[in-house]
Amino acid sequence: MSRPVDAAIAAIREFLGERLTTNAGLREHHSHGQDTQPPVSPDAVAFIETSEEAGRVLAICNTHGVPVVPFGTGSSLEGHVTPVRGGISLDLSRMTQVLEVNAADMDCRVQAGVTHRTLNAHLRDQGLFFPVDPGADASIGGMCATRASGTNAVRYGTIRENVLGLTVALADGRVIRTGGRVRKSATGYDLTHLFVGSEGTLGVITEIQLRLHGIPEAASAAICQFETLGDAVETVIAVMQAGIPVARIELLDDVQMGACIAYSKLEDALPLPTLFFEFHGTEASVAEQATSAEEIAGSFGARGFRWATGQEERNKLWRARHDAYWACLALKPGHKGIATDAIVPISRLAEAILGAQDDIAASGLTAPIVGHVGDGNFHTVILVPPEPDGIARAWELDKKIVARALALGGSCSGEHGVGIGKREFLEVEHGAETLAVMRSVKTTLDPRGILNPGKIFLN
Amino acid sequence: MSRPVDAAIAAIREFLGERLTTNAGLREHHSHGQDTQPPVSPDAVAFIETSEEAGRVLAICNTHGVPVVPFGTGSSLEGHVTPVRGGISLDLSRMTQVLEVNAADMDCRVQAGVTHRTLNAHLRDQGLFFPVDPGADASIGGMCATRASGTNAVRYGTIRENVLGLTVALADGRVIRTGGRVRKSATGYDLTHLFVGSEGTLGVITEIQLRLHGIPEAASAAICQFETLGDAVETVIAVMQAGIPVARIELLDDVQMGACIAYSKLEDALPLPTLFFEFHGTEASVAEQATSAEEIAGSFGARGFRWATGQEERNKLWRARHDAYWACLALKPGHKGIATDAIVPISRLAEAILGAQDDIAASGLTAPIVGHVGDGNFHTVILVPPEPDGIARAWELDKKIVARALALGGSCSGEHGVGIGKREFLEVEHGAETLAVMRSVKTTLDPRGILNPGKIFLN
Ligand SMILES: Cc1cc2nc3c(=O)[nH]c(=O)nc-3n(C[C@H](O)[C@H](O)[C@H](O)COP(=O)(O)OP(=O)(O)OC[C@H]3O[C@@H](n4cnc5c(N)ncnc54)[C@H](O)[C@@H]3O)c2cc1C
Ligand SMILES: Cc1cc2nc3c(=O)[nH]c(=O)nc-3n(C[C@H](O)[C@H](O)[C@H](O)COP(=O)(O)OP(=O)(O)OC[C@H]3O[C@@H](n4cnc5c(N)ncnc54)[C@H](O)[C@@H]3O)c2cc1C
Repeated sequence: MSRPVDAAIAAIREFLGERLTTNAGLREHHSHGQDTQPPVSPDAVAFIETSEEAGRVLAICNTHGVPVVPFGTGSSLEGHVTPVRGGISLDLSRMTQVLEVNAADMDCRVQAGVTHRTLNAHLRDQGLFFPVDPGADASIGGMCATRASGTNAVRYGTIRENVLGLTVALADGRVIRTGGRVRKSATGYDLTHLFVGSEGTLGVITEIQLRLHGIPEAASAAICQFETLGDAVETVIAVMQAGIPVARIELLDDVQMGACIAYSKLEDALPLPTLFFEFHGTEASVAEQATSAEEIAGSFGARGFRWATGQEERNKLWRARHDAYWACLALKPGHKGIATDAIVPISRLAEAILGAQDDIAASGLTAPIVGHVGDGNFHTVILVPPEPDGIARAWELDKKIVARALALGGSCSGEHGVGIGKREFLEVEHGAETLAVMRSVKTTLDPRGILNPGKIFLN
Repeated sequence: MSRPVDAAIAAIREFLGERLTTNAGLREHHSHGQDTQPPVSPDAVAFIETSEEAGRVLAICNTHGVPVVPFGTGSSLEGHVTPVRGGISLDLSRMTQVLEVNAADMDCRVQAGVTHRTLNAHLRDQGLFFPVDPGADASIGGMCATRASGTNAVRYGTIRENVLGLTVALADGRVIRTGGRVRKSATGYDLTHLFVGSEGTLGVITEIQLRLHGIPEAASAAICQFETLGDAVETVIAVMQAGIPVARIELLDDVQMGACIAYSKLEDALPLPTLFFEFHGTEASVAEQATSAEEIAGSFGARGFRWATGQEERNKLWRARHDAYWACLALKPGHKGIATDAIVPISRLAEAILGAQDDIAASGLTAPIVGHVGDGNFHTVILVPPEPDGIARAWELDKKIVARALALGGSCSGEHGVGIGKREFLEVEHGAETLAVMRSVKTTLDPRGILNPGKIFLN
């Protein structure tokens, strides 16, 4: 007896040929992201290359009621890409064309599979850069879908503020364009931002019009260390309130800093609560920003405020920051890592982070803290002991940290998204009525529920 | 025979009492905005004071199928507030409470009827300001509804970038909250930005959570004048590309400058194409920005680059800019003004504006040009001759300017919105399929079509 998915696979194979595969290894690769949710393989993986192909796959799957789960690079952390109900994993990683760069307007259009590092390599010659930088080399489509951000968001905004328009294939196969090239527009509903953060549940993003930024004339990085985490957090709050336009301001707690020192061979640094700064601007304004930040940090007892203006020294510092996840894993070989994500209004940051530290201590687990603290956003990497109850203990800790953030007026995810892991918090955060409105939007755009089912909403 | 609207009015009067009025003068006041669309009076005006009252009015009107048209201050320019199908004008101007200000987090929550000037007066003591500044003293609710911006948008973003969350009464009377207090979040669909720019057609915004900004340590303004409009536009493009973080950069053409000189008694200025700048930052960075801008302007032949660092001098300059609309009207007493609005990618700005000047010349009408040119956004105020075909001629000119902007990859409105006047351009700008998706969202949230019918979409 032939299943609907077999009919869909046959129909898709007709035009994708070998780019539709049921190879076991590839199906396994598409069964999970960088998460600890139980993996589920798709029935097939479709490697598309154009918006039109996305539309055709969707139209077929919609007819047959077969789930479609978009797949960028699979770096998401909450089970986003797992095809929990089987179906087709729609892989966009071959859509790697930078379609246009308009240097004068500081914008570009890319296919969804272009990663942020590839794009930046492409742009460098033109004095431009794209600022959104999650730790993984994620696809721009995936970043749009998860409403990603990273260390630069405090200055340049998240992906949300840097997307001007989208090309989207809808569940029924129609391909639409939203937004446009202009910086702002007051015409019609903001569909662009409806798709941003929708995690593949409302449509498949195939092309993205992005804002770019000029590479700053000057940049400098700085690092400083504190006796207590509280002092470090207070410094962040004061720096933000002083209106210093920091490009980046990252907090690492003592455990995380210890891990980074060991992993990235950072010299002259101690395993203490630490802030990493980056300043962008003209030579003069960068110097001025750094001096102001140093003064503030000093008033909270910072020691060893050191600047790094050379490209190489800066890179080393930020590479260490970007490798923080791997540095954590290296702390306890054989442990998996669960990356948590929470965000609070900045005035509640000290409470949220100090509370998280208490929770970690009480749990008996190792979980370094690191955060994009200028936004009030912080993470821990919970190291999961390779024991039967290891994951359950880690998740319990994760939920405690998130619950406190929500109680402090925050959100259960600043940037990683909902996927499977955060679904249970959505009603607490948004309220049942608001969630019902989100569901009605989902039903309107995807009446048969084929797009990434089982994500964002509980059942 | 009693009409549905009479039943609705009776039911609303039960709890609003005298705040539901059928007074002819008040109905006339709610029959139009600052536009030249034919006025239509509502059957009644309801002055609400709470979110709950908004929900109750909507539930009643939904039951009876009676239109509801939200009304902020009525300063919109495209017929937005005209109740073309009668019904209730829902006036939010008495919802004037600033509900909370969180100085540490630089955010606040206001009722929808608070105007941007009132809010800024309220904030001044705390060293904070709200940057979105349309020329009129519009309500924050109305500004959200029209996706408004103004002179500061080039640096601080439009209302879109400054709204964190909303309280919205839906067509069926449910009251929901969207977004929250945090700077960013990756949890669930972005309903906040769906309501921003929806012009009262998807829900009634009753409260708004806003981002605030620190009043800069230093600010300076500058003015410089050019032989040709082309030189002024090229200066803008070069300044933006140089990454100078201008707070404001406004273009006035020779006609507009002449009008401002006469109206605002600007001394030492000539009726030439003119740029107004404002720079925000520290003392040093403001000086640096101004020097860089002066250098660039000089290379395009600017003359008379003058700085105004004193608060009073700056205010005078910017008051003149904000009074540009009235200065235009004063040029030709007895003429009405039609404010046009278009936006293009900045690389096409010279073409768009020089083309508009040709159109104006060909039309034989007077229409000064002024623009938030850092965003690629510009306006003309077309002075409508008091003759039978005056309005038709003005609209013809308006449409020509908009059509060119669209052909250059722009949008038919950068900030004023669609209302009645821009409906015909939406399909050209967004495409029929995209418009169909917008309509399906509308139907989902407002199945009976009671919310501001006849706007955004043609019939
Ligand atoms: C070491 C490490 C560090 C990280 N640091 C950060 C960080 O600092 N900030 C941050 O925000 N995230 C971070 N992440 C998480 C992750 O990188 C982001 O969520 C990223 O945006 C996912 O992109 P992706 O291409 O891998 O998407 P995937 O994981 O492939 O997909 C993510 C979700 O988006 C959907 N999707 C993917 N592509 C599309 C498309 N074209 N159209 C529609 N839906 C689509 C998928 O169905 C899925 O629901 C980190 C991850 C790791 C492993
Ligand atoms: C001299 C002058 C200069 C201007 N300059 C600018 C400028 O620089 N930039 C700019 O963007 N605009 C400008 N405008 C246009 C106008 O000020 C804006 O559109 C403003 O946002 C309208 O706000 P309002 O409170 O007057 O809204 P209204 O005119 O009362 O309503 C506008 C629309 O929003 C809806 N609405 C109002 N309140 C709500 C609510 N609480 N919930 C849901 N829907 C609601 C209404 O139904 C209507 O569709 C200018 C207008 C004038 C007269």
